Amino acid sequence: MRTIVIHEANDLRVEERDVSPPGPGEVQVRIAIGGVCGSDLHYYNHGGFGAVKLKEPMILGHEVSGHVAALGKGVTGFSIGELVAVSPSRPCRACRFCHEGLYNQCLGMRFYGSAMPFPHIQGAFREVLNVDAEQCVSAEALTPGEAAMAEPFSVALHATRRAGDMLGKRVLVTGCGPIGVLSIISARRAGAAEIVATDLAANALAHAEQAGADRVIDVSDDSDLLNRYSGDKGTFDVHYECSGSPQALAAGIVAVRPRGVIMQLGLSGDMTVPMMQVTAKEIDLRGSFRFHEEFATAVEFMRNGLVDLKPLITQTVVLEEAEQAFIAANDRSRAMKAQIAFSQA
Amino acid sequence: MRTIVIHEANDLRVEERDVSPPGPGEVQVRIAIGGVCGSDLHYYNHGGFGAVKLKEPMILGHEVSGHVAALGKGVTGFSIGELVAVSPSRPCRACRFCHEGLYNQCLGMRFYGSAMPFPHIQGAFREVLNVDAEQCVSAEALTPGEAAMAEPFSVALHATRRAGDMLGKRVLVTGCGPIGVLSIISARRAGAAEIVATDLAANALAHAEQAGADRVIDVSDDSDLLNRYSGDKGTFDVHYECSGSPQALAAGIVAVRPRGVIMQLGLSGDMTVPMMQVTAKEIDLRGSFRFHEEFATAVEFMRNGLVDLKPLITQTVVLEEAEQAFIAANDRSRAMKAQIAFSQA
Amino acid sequence: MRTIVIHEANDLRVEERDVSPPGPGEVQVRIAIGGVCGSDLHYYNHGGFGAVKLKEPMILGHEVSGHVAALGKGVTGFSIGELVAVSPSRPCRACRFCHEGLYNQCLGMRFYGSAMPFPHIQGAFREVLNVDAEQCVSAEALTPGEAAMAEPFSVALHATRRAGDMLGKRVLVTGCGPIGVLSIISARRAGAAEIVATDLAANALAHAEQAGADRVIDVSDDSDLLNRYSGDKGTFDVHYECSGSPQALAAGIVAVRPRGVIMQLGLSGDMTVPMMQVTAKEIDLRGSFRFHEEFATAVEFMRNGLVDLKPLITQTVVLEEAEQAFIAANDRSRAMKAQIAFSQA
Amino acid sequence: MRTIVIHEANDLRVEERDVSPPGPGEVQVRIAIGGVCGSDLHYYNHGGFGAVKLKEPMILGHEVSGHVAALGKGVTGFSIGELVAVSPSRPCRACRFCHEGLYNQCLGMRFYGSAMPFPHIQGAFREVLNVDAEQCVSAEALTPGEAAMAEPFSVALHATRRAGDMLGKRVLVTGCGPIGVLSIISARRAGAAEIVATDLAANALAHAEQAGADRVIDVSDDSDLLNRYSGDKGTFDVHYECSGSPQALAAGIVAVRPRGVIMQLGLSGDMTVPMMQVTAKEIDLRGSFRFHEEFATAVEFMRNGLVDLKPLITQTVVLEEAEQAFIAANDRSRAMKAQIAFSQA
Repeated sequence: MRTIVIHEANDLRVEERDVSPPGPGEVQVRIAIGGVCGSDLHYYNHGGFGAVKLKEPMILGHEVSGHVAALGKGVTGFSIGELVAVSPSRPCRACRFCHEGLYNQCLGMRFYGSAMPFPHIQGAFREVLNVDAEQCVSAEALTPGEAAMAEPFSVALHATRRAGDMLGKRVLVTGCGPIGVLSIISARRAGAAEIVATDLAANALAHAEQAGADRVIDVSDDSDLLNRYSGDKGTFDVHYECSGSPQALAAGIVAVRPRGVIMQLGLSGDMTVPMMQVTAKEIDLRGSFRFHEEFATAVEFMRNGLVDLKPLITQTVVLEEAEQAFIAANDRSRAMKAQIAFSQA
Repeated sequence: MRTIVIHEANDLRVEERDVSPPGPGEVQVRIAIGGVCGSDLHYYNHGGFGAVKLKEPMILGHEVSGHVAALGKGVTGFSIGELVAVSPSRPCRACRFCHEGLYNQCLGMRFYGSAMPFPHIQGAFREVLNVDAEQCVSAEALTPGEAAMAEPFSVALHATRRAGDMLGKRVLVTGCGPIGVLSIISARRAGAAEIVATDLAANALAHAEQAGADRVIDVSDDSDLLNRYSGDKGTFDVHYECSGSPQALAAGIVAVRPRGVIMQLGLSGDMTVPMMQVTAKEIDLRGSFRFHEEFATAVEFMRNGLVDLKPLITQTVVLEEAEQAFIAANDRSRAMKAQIAFSQA
Repeated sequence: MRTIVIHEANDLRVEERDVSPPGPGEVQVRIAIGGVCGSDLHYYNHGGFGAVKLKEPMILGHEVSGHVAALGKGVTGFSIGELVAVSPSRPCRACRFCHEGLYNQCLGMRFYGSAMPFPHIQGAFREVLNVDAEQCVSAEALTPGEAAMAEPFSVALHATRRAGDMLGKRVLVTGCGPIGVLSIISARRAGAAEIVATDLAANALAHAEQAGADRVIDVSDDSDLLNRYSGDKGTFDVHYECSGSPQALAAGIVAVRPRGVIMQLGLSGDMTVPMMQVTAKEIDLRGSFRFHEEFATAVEFMRNGLVDLKPLITQTVVLEEAEQAFIAANDRSRAMKAQIAFSQA
Repeated sequence: MRTIVIHEANDLRVEERDVSPPGPGEVQVRIAIGGVCGSDLHYYNHGGFGAVKLKEPMILGHEVSGHVAALGKGVTGFSIGELVAVSPSRPCRACRFCHEGLYNQCLGMRFYGSAMPFPHIQGAFREVLNVDAEQCVSAEALTPGEAAMAEPFSVALHATRRAGDMLGKRVLVTGCGPIGVLSIISARRAGAAEIVATDLAANALAHAEQAGADRVIDVSDDSDLLNRYSGDKGTFDVHYECSGSPQALAAGIVAVRPRGVIMQLGLSGDMTVPMMQVTAKEIDLRGSFRFHEEFATAVEFMRNGLVDLKPLITQTVVLEEAEQAFIAANDRSRAMKAQIAFSQA
């Protein structure tokens, strides 16, 4: 089978790998679609991020869907040919966090396409993938492209759950890449009354608006955000910080009301934080990382017609031209989510 | 009456002011004891902190107790001579945060001895103070010194309530000044199972231990904190950061377990935060600021014998020598809480 | 002006009352629409409910909207002729629950059309009503009928907020009168993934389905609810009990999963509860009563197009025929919400 | 080895059983002390309770401590002769509730001495017990009697955690058997400011007082509970209902303040509940059942000297006279916790 392998920054190859049969409890999936995530892009552009560095070739990818090709021993509940969304969350189920039910904090997590441990965890951008049955969620009636959106949507749903009560709340989203736009959709689904989104790119803001933001602000030429929303100690109940920019975080700290919640989703290294205001306004700055049980919810919301994620898919390229998906994803003036088609089903 | 007035950094004077009778709904209190808080010290040492600067002479002080001297029209429930702890929290009761019951976030707060608005809010270090009846909590059977501890204790109780479930938890306290030590007492009262405290000063750590810390670490010569508690993504459920030091916050971020809570109590300006870990470990970094309804609880805990705050009182000087209390408070090798005796009752 | 007055059970009259000018801080509203609530019906049918009994003639009604007719001294922010939804929640703002921000628990609440205190609190079914400015929420672009739905919708929103995390949850609603149907809409708006509704009346179930229930069960001829959802200790995360029927509550206790939440909205007297299961499954049975701050959210959701409550309005009669609205509301085979038109605007 | 077996109501026998060696991962414990729980008593008095009925002889008991006698393959961290408290909570770790970390709701729980499934789960009243290593918590420096108190104390700690914020709260405990008294201790440990306890028996109330209740009320001759605490919609923030009596629950519903929490711990069948007040006061009536992770906390609290449970142990009889422990436990005028000594260590 063919796979998409990163060797080092800017060295992406389509390579052959052997296929093995599904083991007991496993489902063999013929991958249909794989979405390019920000972390995939980091490996492609920089060979890693922060302390996470490529040390050996690694198959990329963790946003995938596909069709059931074979069932391992003991697996029931799936039929051959059925479309499934595949969760990349593979906790060990043996560490103390797994025992507490906090699977996304697993000490032995084997999340696809991650260079954090060595040997690296090989990814899901491959024509055939054997997965544990519990990683699969039936996605019948969805397109494979939508099904592959379940993964990034789960990230936003997890952050939304962690943000707490959203009913009737005012929400700020800074950074309207896929996670930012999916946070808009997720916040609305959870009951947000008003959503304001900021970004530097017109394309991102157009997507934010399409996704339901009530107001979008181009912070490249509009600095009124603070003026308009920061009076009387601030307006927003919840801030999804999806840009990783210290300026965006600082703007949120000013614009969020006392006891407001800031979800820090955008990954970055050290950030300078105006901590006096965090203390004085009693702001609640929370990290949010990946997801676990939200994956099934993500698929269910799409299947029930409660959200529509298709407008986020801006490019789909065939496997042979996989690198074009990465090049496309790098162009924020045009891309939201670029996907790779592994098969035509 | 005599009052303690700060004119500028290092210019502290005992000055005369007129006494007025208590208005309707007010209680006239003959102040017995006033404790020196870190913010009083900042005015004395630096004339302010951050953007908060002295612009006119200001009576200092907000940690006070005293005896009821007279009752304004309509006041019942207090008797002349009764010892009361006086809360410095004076919200406007008209702004949107007051309407929500979040009094410590009041937009028009008139907290004693604060240079934030101009004209400044004059403080409580004076021989006679007229206060709203609802600021008074009967402190009979306590010493005036203990009663004056209700204010800083309330800060720790408020942070403890905001920290959430404490029952059986592991707690880290960094910075063992009065707020740190009171956080130890407060965390224990709320059910903490294990408390580890750090500081640079032996005197502070001795107080921490006396207050109930299970282990104290002198971080001036012991850097094993991270090694011992940071394995498997960290140990502590809750971290009270009471030092305002970025190193202490960063150490906490490493030593706190995933989904742990860090209460940022120590005031500081900008802090550099290792945000990648906040996100990846889904840490909850919360500000905590002053208090309101916890004041009555603080007094009740002392009266019921559930906490003993007397050991924190390290010096008591007479009003005539008030400056000595500030000088004493500046010496962390000897002081915990320095107090000023306004009267002998 | 004309008003709708209940004298005793089945004695409803349209009577004249004097109009007074709006006082300082008040808005004079020319009432456009008044909706008939279950409690209005109880007064009409039975002269009260439980210990609450009519002791003097009382103007009914608390679900009203209207047009601004005059502004009292000091009122700004409204223009003459503007459509407003009028909140009937009039807390005293002086009791301990008001001070905590729990306005719906006010000890001195003067909720329109309530026979609980004596003299009774006269209601809002009148052609002209002077209200505090803060009771008014601009409802421009809504119909008066929709605006009058803000009140019952607020009840459901309040219960939804109290129910906690709704994102991706499975929800059971028993009793599909207006509060049940509005709970369906509210739960969906807050992120429910699956909603099952039960009732005895086909008309109610048709409304439930129109409002978004994924499945409706006619419990008059279908007793499979327990069978289908009660396996493995139960399915539902949240149960809105809107019928006041002990059977419905008991069914929910069986069908709700361990640690699930039951919101008891349906008013009743004593109920027999299978408490062993409540204890063993650690069910959380919560009362929910009226609302306060949710009123503005209710209007905002309608104005932003996030919910559509028009389909619930099944009958509108003119003031002269007010009693027909009560008779209509009594017929659950046809009515959902019956409203009375006080004016043509 | 000898075991304590219930055959039917009032037919309790000391019987021989074979001893098997510890399996892999198991610890063999020589039982030192076993406490008689209310459920043991129900089997002894009535042969079961509610739908739970004895269908075959069953070894009783689940409150036990003992000394490590042998280690199965792969077990480390315990030494021969070490005193351990043994948790009876044995979840399957495979069902959906175990996967969520809600072990006390396990669908396949094998809690010692329970007649719920058939064949029954044999209990821990035996001289030798092989347990999973993770059931053992080192209890060095405690007496075996104290160590055996970890189990019922865990029940109270679990309820306390479920009750939420306890800091500075007012607490009512109805029913001062062992669970009620341990709830007093637990609530105090978690920060309760004021605790009022009720019972019909002077002995129970004396224990409640010794355990820290601020006030005890003999409800057999004092009916002023409601009068004193029910004004202004009620006083208590939290009510632990430990009696299973509908009158006690109803009294709590009156005496608990709006939005207060009632923890229903006392097991009973159907109860008549004044539901109108639950709804109108928005009371939160929560079940609480057993425990899981609190077991280690219970032992830690005792070892750290944070609670003292020895005063609750009122009788200790030798194994040969085991039935005397049941007879003693039945006499509420003298007993709190009766224990059986299986060995002298």
